[in-house]
Amino acid sequence: MLKLYSFGPGANSLKPTLALYEKELEFEHKLLNPAKFEHHSEWFKKINPRGQVPALEDRGNIITESTLICEYLEDEHPTDVKLRPDNSFDTAQMRVWTKWVDEYFCWCVSTIGWHRMVGNMVKGLSDAEFEEKLKDIPVHEQRVKWRRAREGFPQEMLDEEMRKIGVSVRRLDDHLADNEWLAGGMYTLADICNFAIANGMQHGFSEMVNGTDTPHLLRWIEQINERPAVKKMFASVPNELKKD
Amino acid sequence: MLKLYSFGPGANSLKPTLALYEKELEFEHKLLNPAKFEHHSEWFKKINPRGQVPALEDRGNIITESTLICEYLEDEHPTDVKLRPDNSFDTAQMRVWTKWVDEYFCWCVSTIGWHRMVGNMVKGLSDAEFEEKLKDIPVHEQRVKWRRAREGFPQEMLDEEMRKIGVSVRRLDDHLADNEWLAGGMYTLADICNFAIANGMQHGFSEMVNGTDTPHLLRWIEQINERPAVKKMFASVPNELKKD
Repeated sequence: MLKLYSFGPGANSLKPTLALYEKELEFEHKLLNPAKFEHHSEWFKKINPRGQVPALEDRGNIITESTLICEYLEDEHPTDVKLRPDNSFDTAQMRVWTKWVDEYFCWCVSTIGWHRMVGNMVKGLSDAEFEEKLKDIPVHEQRVKWRRAREGFPQEMLDEEMRKIGVSVRRLDDHLADNEWLAGGMYTLADICNFAIANGMQHGFSEMVNGTDTPHLLRWIEQINERPAVKKMFASVPNELKKD
Repeated sequence: MLKLYSFGPGANSLKPTLALYEKELEFEHKLLNPAKFEHHSEWFKKINPRGQVPALEDRGNIITESTLICEYLEDEHPTDVKLRPDNSFDTAQMRVWTKWVDEYFCWCVSTIGWHRMVGNMVKGLSDAEFEEKLKDIPVHEQRVKWRRAREGFPQEMLDEEMRKIGVSVRRLDDHLADNEWLAGGMYTLADICNFAIANGMQHGFSEMVNGTDTPHLLRWIEQINERPAVKKMFASVPNELKKD
């Protein structure tokens, strides 16, 4: 059976989680606890040496990178529910959007998320404890990010990331003003991968994502949240960031 | 007929050019002159509003993003020559490599290339002439890069990019020590997209890419250069950087 290693349903972990629910594929869900740095543990680095979730296990093979896992599910596990357009041109447009999430949109939102929340996970640690944690992180850029999150990101960097978030929500809203979905006139991986980053911005970035400034983006976020597979997924998969 | 808009056979422009030659697909090749900033001209921004090459025209549709053009050619124009593995797992591994080029490897090499060469294109311009050129560039990040190339990149940035180049060639060499090709045991888009960036480093970065430090990477670069389609392509497509 398929096995997904991920955090709760947000950011990159949300992408394959949602694709699996939409496709109604059976899978075992191994949720890792980011607060315990479980993705940097030795057992998980045997699954993904980069110490990053999500990762998919399929008959002994490990597939990494959230967007590529989604494409893999379409390639290897076709179902009646198609999350990729049937024609090549629309598929290319879908990929322009998934590429853009991975190269631009996810990074600016992520930095602000780390600034606001993730940094708190390590602010209580002593210098020695923190340095010990860093040793477990295999990717240089991730170590730098943890260090910055603990010490505080430079204001110039935060300003630049906020500018990029502004550009991103404008781009999404402009496109969604004339299109129900991002690519190919249907709900695709372009929507899933962008939703994974955009969902929640109506709360956390409500000064930018709201009914006045970005009505089309808000409509699209709400529309995706109303999908049966999305509701089922959020009802089933615990979110470690929500404190009830 | 297919029509490719690109620069000469280097960097991102090389990717679809090489895929088209390998697949022996007929196409019209519209070469743009980077020294004349033709990609920022009004006529080309009607083709790609981002003012970036390469772009592929296929029956009135425009496909952008070099890696996605390559995937599109596999999707829409299958030929006897396959540049993507037949099975989904190997395809996912291929995409890990093409994604890595686009998100990591190409950027560090590009910055040093701009520092060494591209900046010279604008250093002779007056401030007013340069500002006029900048107005034609639609992408904010590209305007920033041109400004930095003209004023000089901060040393800290150049050092960091050189560090990343070191990580990149190590990663390639380690993988190619045990594998003839990057993914799926065959020549794929993973090789084409990485070769597009790595080829030439045996000259321009010979302190890092050489027979002693990276023998496997060098073997792979030479092996690809010996392919009939690659030789034919380099013999046919003029390279604006080479002064004969």
